[in-house]
Amino acid sequence: MAPPGAQMLAEMSQQPRVLESLVARRGEIRDAIAPLGDPPPPGIVLVARGSSDNAAIYGRYLLELVLRRPVALAAPSLFTLYGARVACDGWLAIGLSQSGRTPEIVDVFERLVAGGARGVAITNDAASPLAQAAAACVALGAGEELAVPATKTFLAQLAAFALMAEALAEVPWSPADLDALSAHVRALIDDPEPAAHAAAVVGDAPGLVALGRGFQFSVALEAALKLKETALLLAEGMSSADFRHGPIAVMQHAFPALSISDGGAAAGGMAELERDLEERAGPLIRLAPDPRAELPIPAGVPEALAPIVSVVRAQQLARETAIARGLDPDTPPGLSKVTMTR
Amino acid sequence: MAPPGAQMLAEMSQQPRVLESLVARRGEIRDAIAPLGDPPPPGIVLVARGSSDNAAIYGRYLLELVLRRPVALAAPSLFTLYGARVACDGWLAIGLSQSGRTPEIVDVFERLVAGGARGVAITNDAASPLAQAAAACVALGAGEELAVPATKTFLAQLAAFALMAEALAEVPWSPADLDALSAHVRALIDDPEPAAHAAAVVGDAPGLVALGRGFQFSVALEAALKLKETALLLAEGMSSADFRHGPIAVMQHAFPALSISDGGAAAGGMAELERDLEERAGPLIRLAPDPRAELPIPAGVPEALAPIVSVVRAQQLARETAIARGLDPDTPPGLSKVTMTR
Repeated sequence: MAPPGAQMLAEMSQQPRVLESLVARRGEIRDAIAPLGDPPPPGIVLVARGSSDNAAIYGRYLLELVLRRPVALAAPSLFTLYGARVACDGWLAIGLSQSGRTPEIVDVFERLVAGGARGVAITNDAASPLAQAAAACVALGAGEELAVPATKTFLAQLAAFALMAEALAEVPWSPADLDALSAHVRALIDDPEPAAHAAAVVGDAPGLVALGRGFQFSVALEAALKLKETALLLAEGMSSADFRHGPIAVMQHAFPALSISDGGAAAGGMAELERDLEERAGPLIRLAPDPRAELPIPAGVPEALAPIVSVVRAQQLARETAIARGLDPDTPPGLSKVTMTR
Repeated sequence: MAPPGAQMLAEMSQQPRVLESLVARRGEIRDAIAPLGDPPPPGIVLVARGSSDNAAIYGRYLLELVLRRPVALAAPSLFTLYGARVACDGWLAIGLSQSGRTPEIVDVFERLVAGGARGVAITNDAASPLAQAAAACVALGAGEELAVPATKTFLAQLAAFALMAEALAEVPWSPADLDALSAHVRALIDDPEPAAHAAAVVGDAPGLVALGRGFQFSVALEAALKLKETALLLAEGMSSADFRHGPIAVMQHAFPALSISDGGAAAGGMAELERDLEERAGPLIRLAPDPRAELPIPAGVPEALAPIVSVVRAQQLARETAIARGLDPDTPPGLSKVTMTR
């Protein structure tokens, strides 16, 4: 029998290759996506659930920044419960689903396309209903995912957004920056020790707060989701700005905090937050481009791309915390891959 | 010295009056807001933080449903950290701030107006910078708020969205339905016993999950925020649909769950969720239009208005849980009203 978390580790380890293959298809993706940016859409709407929804948060920041148009996240229940009919003529609608077969996501996506949007599917299956409903598809090529917690699909979704941004507008990085990421991801995967130590810091805590801002907010949400699903920890991802203005009160109870920083524009605020946290009791786990951080990431990655690297540390932390708690992250109790196929 | 939570209770008790006064200004609000709906905006963007952001979630569902245009929630850090410049010609931008003076919210709102949006301010202070930057203002008239956890401002913000919806489009309720809410709110305030019992059920739990869908998702988020700020409980608000597909794994640890239902289109899904939860260990607190629910609310309120009633139960639960834990909800440790003034 495989040791606990062997499947999740195998899939995490495929990420450098998945990323390389996706970036190598840059030209093909540009050809498919660029026509959808002309004329510029009045707005963009993203359709996703679960970990795909956390990837969509990254896309939300990135596309609004480079396309200079508001980005909305669809609320599926508006359509499925209340029968909303939304006019979005000329908008870009982007649907994210690992399988491309989640009925709710396909349904909402089709309704937005019917409302006038140009549809883009981001999925592993270019023959899926989601892809068929779209004017263009970014096939992730992440391959089959057997472990319940999605890892390689999430990272590939982030990279798909980066490639879409390159196709549609000027971006705050050079092509070489994106090319360099797979080596960074590989280096982190070859260095699991920091996450094992951080898992020991989390210990038996009943809950945790995962904090990030700007581009890293998506990683805070994904770290929290992975910790919930694999380590059964009540982990909440929050914007550090929101957290400091109220929820920080809960730290009286010494919950551990995961603080995610990329050394970019959000770094000053994250450092202030870390000082606030040090005055309170809980242990602090810093994920940052700093060799002294508990979960170090490489320096020099442009902040708009940093989540593609930092999410690997979040995956490692979830996996190691689950194992330290005697759980098998591949098959969390009470979950099955069927319910996870979105 | 006043007993713990006296100020919060006093402000909660003002809510029927605040609501009546606001609804009595229906004609004035219609005159101010209706012109902004013509021509119809291509989209709507909401700007808020903290509990105002939870009110914005309600507005997000309501306005997208009745205006049939996508609604986005602004990400302030895009503007303040990354200097985003967003074109939103003809959009409706709605800024929410209790004081109308939170620099970040005013800043983002002004940038959206500069980008071409028609601005609406929802605030207590019609002379505030937020109101001055707007083409129209809905003055909440909630009066001074001294307790740290905002209550009456939140409820008034929900009502302001309902009145805006009436001014801009056809709504799924009659004017009499909205008029009837203040009596429902008063009846709940006069009935604090259920919340005291529910607080005993929460007991010393380190965390809690607050679950709702559709319109009630905003109340789940606000219940969680109030429980964090007042009772120092790591309470997370989640969409019940998201929760069932992964995070439900954490219930192995028997966290209490608050399930918020309005008896409307989301009720079937909430009932399924409650069965899922009963198979797991944690105590279940149901907030529902059912006399047998732990936190009963009146039946017959249209689902699109139900959050204006159900949030009162959430406030009561937070206040009673704080008191049961020996805390003073008026002045949570580590927070001050200064940081709360958004």
